[in-house]
Amino acid sequence: MEAIGIDIGGTSFKIGLVDGKGKLLDSFSYPVDHLKNQEDQINELGEKINDFLQKKEIGKSEIIGIGIGCPGSIDSSTGFCDYSNNLKWSHLNVCGILARITSIKCRISNDANVACLGEVKFGVARKYKNVVMLTLGTGIGSGIVIDGKLYEGNQGKGAECGHEVIKMNGRKCTCGRRGCFEAYASATALIKDTKAKMRKHKDSLMWDYVKQDIESVGGKTAFECAKKGDKAAIEVRDRYCFYLAEGILNICSIFRPECIILGGGVSNQKEYLLNNLVPLLEKANYGFGLGPKVEILIAELGNQAGMIGAASLLF
Amino acid sequence: MEAIGIDIGGTSFKIGLVDGKGKLLDSFSYPVDHLKNQEDQINELGEKINDFLQKKEIGKSEIIGIGIGCPGSIDSSTGFCDYSNNLKWSHLNVCGILARITSIKCRISNDANVACLGEVKFGVARKYKNVVMLTLGTGIGSGIVIDGKLYEGNQGKGAECGHEVIKMNGRKCTCGRRGCFEAYASATALIKDTKAKMRKHKDSLMWDYVKQDIESVGGKTAFECAKKGDKAAIEVRDRYCFYLAEGILNICSIFRPECIILGGGVSNQKEYLLNNLVPLLEKANYGFGLGPKVEILIAELGNQAGMIGAASLLF
Repeated sequence: MEAIGIDIGGTSFKIGLVDGKGKLLDSFSYPVDHLKNQEDQINELGEKINDFLQKKEIGKSEIIGIGIGCPGSIDSSTGFCDYSNNLKWSHLNVCGILARITSIKCRISNDANVACLGEVKFGVARKYKNVVMLTLGTGIGSGIVIDGKLYEGNQGKGAECGHEVIKMNGRKCTCGRRGCFEAYASATALIKDTKAKMRKHKDSLMWDYVKQDIESVGGKTAFECAKKGDKAAIEVRDRYCFYLAEGILNICSIFRPECIILGGGVSNQKEYLLNNLVPLLEKANYGFGLGPKVEILIAELGNQAGMIGAASLLF
Repeated sequence: MEAIGIDIGGTSFKIGLVDGKGKLLDSFSYPVDHLKNQEDQINELGEKINDFLQKKEIGKSEIIGIGIGCPGSIDSSTGFCDYSNNLKWSHLNVCGILARITSIKCRISNDANVACLGEVKFGVARKYKNVVMLTLGTGIGSGIVIDGKLYEGNQGKGAECGHEVIKMNGRKCTCGRRGCFEAYASATALIKDTKAKMRKHKDSLMWDYVKQDIESVGGKTAFECAKKGDKAAIEVRDRYCFYLAEGILNICSIFRPECIILGGGVSNQKEYLLNNLVPLLEKANYGFGLGPKVEILIAELGNQAGMIGAASLLF
């Protein structure tokens, strides 16, 4: 049996056909038409799925369901996207509309949740049952799997580890609170900190790296220049890893999961990120001294994570 | 059927006979003999249970099991107390020894965990399935119930919400990290802050309240004097509630439980604590604006919470 996994992003929808082993068999994508109203965006999605299945000569009875990963505040128990800032959706009956048009049952969850579930069922965390995933991107998304199942909180409003305050009265966060983890350890925060450091260090290699254009600074600028020994870049890297370690240690105290998976843009630094992060975690005795080690893993499903993770809601 | 619930404290052991509705039918207690080695302390406990059952003419087949709530780091999957600072125990096979002597099966968990489970099964949170409890005492203990079951983390090393850092590089915590929630919002922290404020405000009513003896300051000093309008006490109360709110809001972001239960000494302020705390939670839009409200409840099992909670491991 196969499932359809849909990765809803701010600019495009990706639709994949995924088998029971988490293998992506086929896929297509198309750009979001923001001129359409929100219901029509889902109508269009349903029709494209119908067309796809017809073209590929796949009967609907062969599909066990459609899984959807969607940014924003998702209530999986009702199938609604309650609110999505990226998509400008609110109170949208995603599953209801899509199931009506495709006649296939649908499940939906937050994009970070499905990414986590995908890694547990088919990716780097296959051997674990209690897992937290952090996606280090524009913000910090998180997914929590307990005893092999997604934990989403009441009406899907939990699993927002990015919005734990790690510094009371600290940096302003987009959520309205001050000092949230994501205000320090998201890619956005890293880029801000990189730019601030560059402004203070006009001789930093980072200026050459971005061809003197500070607007070209990205999440890897500091990491790449730190690798070359640039002192200012090393300071940015170390401070970023300290922030990330503080948030991760909190998750260790609260969940003591078997592993924590890092995904999102910053995690592309892979081993280099781990080499700078893990010693900080090991140094914090409470987190690691008395209890079992928490494995820190890099997500492995990559660009397909959204579709495979969404499909994993059905398996 | 009945269960035996054991509340292991730093100075005494309390043993209760609890029925399937969480009612304490009978109980006894005795002081811990710290001169005995740790195994002999458990041997003695087992013999006292045997004597108790014999005296009351209760057959062992009538007892479905023994539940134990124990401070420290408990691995419920092995039945060991891995480490307890209060009791000076380490690597102690509590369940194994006790089951051998009593011939009754035993289950053990951390004291804050069983307090939470007791409140969910028999106390204030009976109608909820996803619950976090915070015990505001010497430290901040916490218990997490997910889908009606205790979540303890790998080898029982999770559920330490008191050791989430809410202020990076903040106050030193006994765990070795800096800025932990319990370094700000435990009764111990409240007492420290109360004393510090009194030293700065020699005219505060709090001096009269403790009869000029600063060593008599307790967790209720600031609250009781705030009720009488003392300005310095009100400042201590408000700062304490701010700290507590920050930690609670983090738990809302991460778990979005149906309710959070407050227990421990500070929670004896009941409605007065809630009246000062809940407005801060409601003001934080992220926590409460978009999602369902998280009920903040005061624990209701009181002094019997330890025994009833421990027994609830069996029901």
